[in-house]
Amino acid sequence: MKYYAKPLNKLINELSKLPGIGGKTAQRLAFHILSMDDKSAAELAGSITDAKKSMTYCSVCGNLTDTDPCVICSDESRDRSIICVVESPKDVVAMEKIREYRGYYHVLHGAISPMDGVGPDDINLKSLIVRLQNEEVKELVIATNPNIEGEATAMYIARLIKPSGIRVTRIAHGIPVGGDLEYADEVTLLKAMEGRREL
Amino acid sequence: MKYYAKPLNKLINELSKLPGIGGKTAQRLAFHILSMDDKSAAELAGSITDAKKSMTYCSVCGNLTDTDPCVICSDESRDRSIICVVESPKDVVAMEKIREYRGYYHVLHGAISPMDGVGPDDINLKSLIVRLQNEEVKELVIATNPNIEGEATAMYIARLIKPSGIRVTRIAHGIPVGGDLEYADEVTLLKAMEGRREL
Repeated sequence: MKYYAKPLNKLINELSKLPGIGGKTAQRLAFHILSMDDKSAAELAGSITDAKKSMTYCSVCGNLTDTDPCVICSDESRDRSIICVVESPKDVVAMEKIREYRGYYHVLHGAISPMDGVGPDDINLKSLIVRLQNEEVKELVIATNPNIEGEATAMYIARLIKPSGIRVTRIAHGIPVGGDLEYADEVTLLKAMEGRREL
Repeated sequence: MKYYAKPLNKLINELSKLPGIGGKTAQRLAFHILSMDDKSAAELAGSITDAKKSMTYCSVCGNLTDTDPCVICSDESRDRSIICVVESPKDVVAMEKIREYRGYYHVLHGAISPMDGVGPDDINLKSLIVRLQNEEVKELVIATNPNIEGEATAMYIARLIKPSGIRVTRIAHGIPVGGDLEYADEVTLLKAMEGRREL
């Protein structure tokens, strides 16, 4: 026996395909959507279609954008000598939020992970090499995630680029600000010790 | 400074209006939607539009439906002598899932709550009275939620209907199956004692 009318069932089904949205949440969202006024529901549906249609990847850095090149790549006031390499467009947003970094970005769309069959050719790495040949870049900051895949990717890129004379740096690992030594894991604490600086 | 391109920003904004979806989750969902293939994204958007367009409220019972009267109201094999009164369409689904109840429903779309300014005229109650005059109903099971508003609504309906000779019942309160006496609150335990039955 089916409990929901077909269009409602379809909506619940589509919503539950989203990450972190289980059956119960999908049901709650679906009922909420049905209780919304027509205009709001149309805007929600329209925003999905619009975003999907107009968002693309920047041909220079690989970031998500609705213009090509993206806003950051076409910002002439930024520092041409530095490129920050990140795994995903979300990381660009995180970096931009600190309002301190003024260089450019390069989005890899993943990290090297031999276990998952992701090699250097499967991420957006080739276009980075091409960029480095054309642009006057002096430093490459590798800001991949501090996990096995991110570290492997950082090491790979470092070995690849260093011979060209460009400085390759890695963001610091350590105790998060506001964090507690007591609760830090051993590896983080070790990295924090290794990375200690003169006061 | 804006961190997202406009269409992405709009999508995140629309998603974060949904209940239980905060900024971070909306961002995660938006990035997921952008990474979906075109067909899946179109289906998601389409399911919202379709559901919103084709779902309506049953003119008989008030349940959400894509046909009028709804599947349940037009099911002749059900027991005409009993109507179960619930607060929302979700409750109909919950009742149907037990696969035991074979009567009809009436969805109030809310509960009487003087604190929130919701009176008997603000819920789908009048049409229930009309139904009771026309149909050969013998019992009205009130399955509103066991909270203050639900109880007040149950009492109100009981007083309204009882003079007509129709039997008005209330679903049982007690310890949930699989629950633990130790963790039951006093009111529930009291209700469980009051409702005790011969073995």
